Amino acid sequence: MTRFVLVAGTTETARIEGISAAGADPDLVAHTPSADAELIEYGHLVRAPTVPVSPTGCPTPAAVTRAVREQVGFETLVVDAGLAEPTGAPTVEVGAKPGRDIREADPVPTAPGAWVAARELGRALPDDELVVGETIPGGTTTALGVCRALGGEGSQPPREDGDAGEFPVSSSLPENPIDLKRRVIDDAFEASDLDPGAAAYRPKLAVRFLGDPALAVVAGLVAGALESGTDVILGGGTQMFAAAALVRHAGVADPLTVATTTYVAADTDLDSAAAALDCELVVTDPGFAGRDDPLARYAAGEAKEGAGMGGALSLAERSGSLGSVADGTLEVVERVNGSYGP
Amino acid sequence: MTRFVLVAGTTETARIEGISAAGADPDLVAHTPSADAELIEYGHLVRAPTVPVSPTGCPTPAAVTRAVREQVGFETLVVDAGLAEPTGAPTVEVGAKPGRDIREADPVPTAPGAWVAARELGRALPDDELVVGETIPGGTTTALGVCRALGGEGSQPPREDGDAGEFPVSSSLPENPIDLKRRVIDDAFEASDLDPGAAAYRPKLAVRFLGDPALAVVAGLVAGALESGTDVILGGGTQMFAAAALVRHAGVADPLTVATTTYVAADTDLDSAAAALDCELVVTDPGFAGRDDPLARYAAGEAKEGAGMGGALSLAERSGSLGSVADGTLEVVERVNGSYGP
Repeated sequence: MTRFVLVAGTTETARIEGISAAGADPDLVAHTPSADAELIEYGHLVRAPTVPVSPTGCPTPAAVTRAVREQVGFETLVVDAGLAEPTGAPTVEVGAKPGRDIREADPVPTAPGAWVAARELGRALPDDELVVGETIPGGTTTALGVCRALGGEGSQPPREDGDAGEFPVSSSLPENPIDLKRRVIDDAFEASDLDPGAAAYRPKLAVRFLGDPALAVVAGLVAGALESGTDVILGGGTQMFAAAALVRHAGVADPLTVATTTYVAADTDLDSAAAALDCELVVTDPGFAGRDDPLARYAAGEAKEGAGMGGALSLAERSGSLGSVADGTLEVVERVNGSYGP
Repeated sequence: MTRFVLVAGTTETARIEGISAAGADPDLVAHTPSADAELIEYGHLVRAPTVPVSPTGCPTPAAVTRAVREQVGFETLVVDAGLAEPTGAPTVEVGAKPGRDIREADPVPTAPGAWVAARELGRALPDDELVVGETIPGGTTTALGVCRALGGEGSQPPREDGDAGEFPVSSSLPENPIDLKRRVIDDAFEASDLDPGAAAYRPKLAVRFLGDPALAVVAGLVAGALESGTDVILGGGTQMFAAAALVRHAGVADPLTVATTTYVAADTDLDSAAAALDCELVVTDPGFAGRDDPLARYAAGEAKEGAGMGGALSLAERSGSLGSVADGTLEVVERVNGSYGP
């Protein structure tokens, strides 16, 4: 049996102006993971105030994941990786607290403990296959930070047998604010008194000082699941490559798949990144291009991924229901918002 | 769509010797609700140490509920109503903490807040129908206490239009320790400086001083669900009659069903209790009598109910799968324990 696991958390890194598109209103960004969890769990909001949309009205990828769930019928599990606002979705605790801005000295002190608890959870879950997604605004910045701490992105080879090449950094914004991200990460290295590559083979260190609680939980959960013989699909883009790097740096060599969308693949060179991490790569096109509704924003390069969308799409493709995902997504958004208009 | 809600909590009232059969080893009793939640959610244990069994090897009613779920396929939600031990099941928080022994002065100070939060949750859940069950060792004693505080059990009429008659007090033990329960409740009234009947029409007061956190959460959740037009089946015996009384004393007059097992019905006069509370009564026989396996303990009067068993059985009957519940239950117990032998 397949279970979809949503790892939902927050980092104050998302509050840096210009970093994230996850939420039209900056004050609502911290609600996004809580709302995404409710959408996937119930197909409705329960405690969260609004459906997360980008400033241009692009609906959250969680609506896509929910639409696939309504067609495919998989079971779900939400892990609290440091939620900052209430959610009506049931969650499992692993001791994670919201991450602070990575420009502080010790931004994610709960990361090592959450990793360990998530690893035990991953070992204990009875499922044959897990599809793991994340929802954490600001997460591509911390993912890039983690990969630089591990020694990727050309600064050091992450594995003894080769070079990781360039790490694929995507963005929820059409214009990726990559220079801003790099500056934030430079400041984070300085604040943590750590050098790029210094956390190679010490993944808990990387995620504690350059990362966020969701990455710690995803990596721990996946390591534990793989160790107990469970198949794992990482559903997502940049953050899931960072999670895969963390898992590999933890010494877990089992087969691992990253499933993402064509929108992330259009942004970056995923093949070489997947090869460097010894991951299988699955890229699914949800078919949002050329539509005259808000989903077209995805094809214009917005949102691109998140909340396990790429993983859910791979399940839709496997079950032959990919063709009805777009209409299903609009139905979810309309059901919750009353309309899906911009 | 139907959702099964398990309200899982603890009260230190269960630690009074002779009160409860929920757990063979007294040290494991506090794990029972956490284990029940995992069984229903996963059909396996994740963080809990063992499958709850009575001292004679009678498996927890949660195994029955899980077996029905595997046949009928309903969605689930676990609400944390004061769990005292870790669970790997995802839970929603409503601010409940473990209840203290009702012989203390203010045993459930979180009850009024948890009631309010659970009521909002009940209002917000998007489902057409909720089946609500509970798992809280010691819960029949607190249920009886609540009903006496509201004025039932012959001390005062609970509603202006009639007399509640005798409140149906069941037990997880074949020999109901009713005298012990009454003594504990007498002590509780004294400790709280409250008289029987003094909490009529003030249900939050009753549950705070004589009750437990699970009753507060069930009553709040059901009140909210009914107010928002959701159908509700209370799955259980004694505790669900107490929850129904709390809901009625909160002024909620909507139709309400109590679904329980023949084992509870054999213990007490449910018809008059249901009539007094203006509830429809559904009694389902799971067909465990005459078996040569541990389920026969149910027919001998053990366990009887719990973890929404009666509600789940009513769903099994509705879907025509009641005949396979017994074998399914043993399959669940065997899967988790390796065997179902005593």
